[in-house]
Amino acid sequence: MIIPAIDEEARQRARERQDRLTKPAGSLGRLELLSIDLAGMTGRIDPPLEHRVVFTLAADHGVAAEGVSAYPREVTAQMVLNFLAGGAAVNVLARLFGARVVVADLGVDADLPQHPQLRALKVRRGTDSITRGAAMSVEDAQHAIDHGRALVLDEVERGLDVVLTGDMGIGNTTASAAMICALTGLEPRAVVGRGTGVDDAGLSRKLNAVRAALEVNAERIARGPLDALAAVGGLEIAGLVGVIMEAASQRKPVVIDGFISGAAALAAARIAPGTTGYMVASHRSQELGHAAALQELGLRPLFDLDLRLGEGTGALLALPLLDAAVRTLNEMATFDEARVSDRERDAAHNRPHN
Amino acid sequence: MIIPAIDEEARQRARERQDRLTKPAGSLGRLELLSIDLAGMTGRIDPPLEHRVVFTLAADHGVAAEGVSAYPREVTAQMVLNFLAGGAAVNVLARLFGARVVVADLGVDADLPQHPQLRALKVRRGTDSITRGAAMSVEDAQHAIDHGRALVLDEVERGLDVVLTGDMGIGNTTASAAMICALTGLEPRAVVGRGTGVDDAGLSRKLNAVRAALEVNAERIARGPLDALAAVGGLEIAGLVGVIMEAASQRKPVVIDGFISGAAALAAARIAPGTTGYMVASHRSQELGHAAALQELGLRPLFDLDLRLGEGTGALLALPLLDAAVRTLNEMATFDEARVSDRERDAAHNRPHN
Repeated sequence: MIIPAIDEEARQRARERQDRLTKPAGSLGRLELLSIDLAGMTGRIDPPLEHRVVFTLAADHGVAAEGVSAYPREVTAQMVLNFLAGGAAVNVLARLFGARVVVADLGVDADLPQHPQLRALKVRRGTDSITRGAAMSVEDAQHAIDHGRALVLDEVERGLDVVLTGDMGIGNTTASAAMICALTGLEPRAVVGRGTGVDDAGLSRKLNAVRAALEVNAERIARGPLDALAAVGGLEIAGLVGVIMEAASQRKPVVIDGFISGAAALAAARIAPGTTGYMVASHRSQELGHAAALQELGLRPLFDLDLRLGEGTGALLALPLLDAAVRTLNEMATFDEARVSDRERDAAHNRPHN
Repeated sequence: MIIPAIDEEARQRARERQDRLTKPAGSLGRLELLSIDLAGMTGRIDPPLEHRVVFTLAADHGVAAEGVSAYPREVTAQMVLNFLAGGAAVNVLARLFGARVVVADLGVDADLPQHPQLRALKVRRGTDSITRGAAMSVEDAQHAIDHGRALVLDEVERGLDVVLTGDMGIGNTTASAAMICALTGLEPRAVVGRGTGVDDAGLSRKLNAVRAALEVNAERIARGPLDALAAVGGLEIAGLVGVIMEAASQRKPVVIDGFISGAAALAAARIAPGTTGYMVASHRSQELGHAAALQELGLRPLFDLDLRLGEGTGALLALPLLDAAVRTLNEMATFDEARVSDRERDAAHNRPHN
């Protein structure tokens, strides 16, 4: 697939306008940089941000049977029902910030009811345990990626300006940690964290599971990022890889949520270089390896609120910052319009100033 | 003035509800803590946040004549006109986040036009230079504090749920740095920064100005926080002290903007202990001494976006987080409502879980 180049000319226009606005140059900090990034992605200094969709993809993980999560496996399906009923954090924040929630079953190990809000895209009922072999076949991983891409294309039809990633899957911080280790060569110790909150014994089991997964899948991992995704990833992670790739191919900014989305973003960047240019890192999660994944992507998160929930909640919290970045760039008065003395211009004209 | 005690019972109710919501305990991080803080301030776990007002107070500073700012003194008045015309960053963000902007002239050194949006509360035309003596008399400082309190009371009449602080005044990072040094005993070197962007020579002049101000005003500073405010502060800073004190006395959460607001918050906390319990620190600004001021207040900022603009822009950017904190606490389903398995409860019932 072809990832369009970033529009450097639009970035330059945004940068020049930032410097004419009635504020000291650079004083809006990260908002200024964000407005320039969004211009480069979309080719517009005033990109629309109205249609914002969080893609919350769910799947189960074979490794969950090995005591790596604080919650039982059945919670994946229960939380999908909670999403559909509108009672989860992702629903509340989506309502607050005017986003649509697309809930998709990429591989939940349960018979979920038909529901107008649920996209039934089950590739298989959960993965196999990554500690004993591949999580899934490469074909299954590709299938999940294609589903993710199709989800984005469907929303483009309805109007889509900003893509947000989200996830649900008991055990998926273990798979994500394995993915990040597989793609970066980092030690499990530097990446594996407590997820939703395992105790010391659970953390030790997670570490062992990731080590075992990397060992048993070493040959598959060596074949490349798609094989690594199939070997130690997950179905919702693969789906998110597709969401991110398609968003980039459509020149839509894609706001990356937390640890699981970070693992998917890393895989997307390796499978389709160029996707990184369309990513906005929302937050740094509490999960240990998240900062490492973002650093590997060259992304600096916008905020750190000690979040570790997933679902897309962190990505949603970045939306007001996207709005603020675009609105200040386009709605603020320039020094000329407001007749405010601009230091640089005064200096150029040799007018006295302090 | 009496600052009401924080409602510990409401905090406890918020905390207990947080632990019943369908998410791992603590996984919403700072949002959970914020929802508990807001409950304690207001006595409600569902405090209204509809009426939100940013108080952008403006004044001039005698020290501005000493080359401590990158901008000429006339910019204070020009920016007030920009606020009134709706072209400044504070206006754009206030529109975006549904806040009213109250612009008040506490001591601008210019004849500002009458304007329905401008509160004309000029105590005097700017302060005297803090390097040569007191910025103003204690009576003038008290006068400005009283104006700040009155501004809040007027907005209470119109409906007021959340108070935000903002400032405009060429030279006011120098006065704020002097204030923070005076109130904490910190060395100027650890507090004085580049403000809106002075060069090395300007930074050196700022440092010297703050050192001179602390020396020439040493006796006044030793008399207490109100005297220190009069000696090395500013009229808009004193006004903000009044805004913060009255907000706390009305049990309204008060969102503290950047460096200048931080200096005012520190003075308010010293003059009226107990106000700190009503403060929410929005962001850590790029200005060197801001982190120190927040630490002294025991406040942890919500985010760090490299902002250094003032006006109330940082405080406004915190509003979506206040909304998110209150809405998730009140609108999310509980484990019982959503029939999601809760680890803790399962453990208590000795049900098997992973």
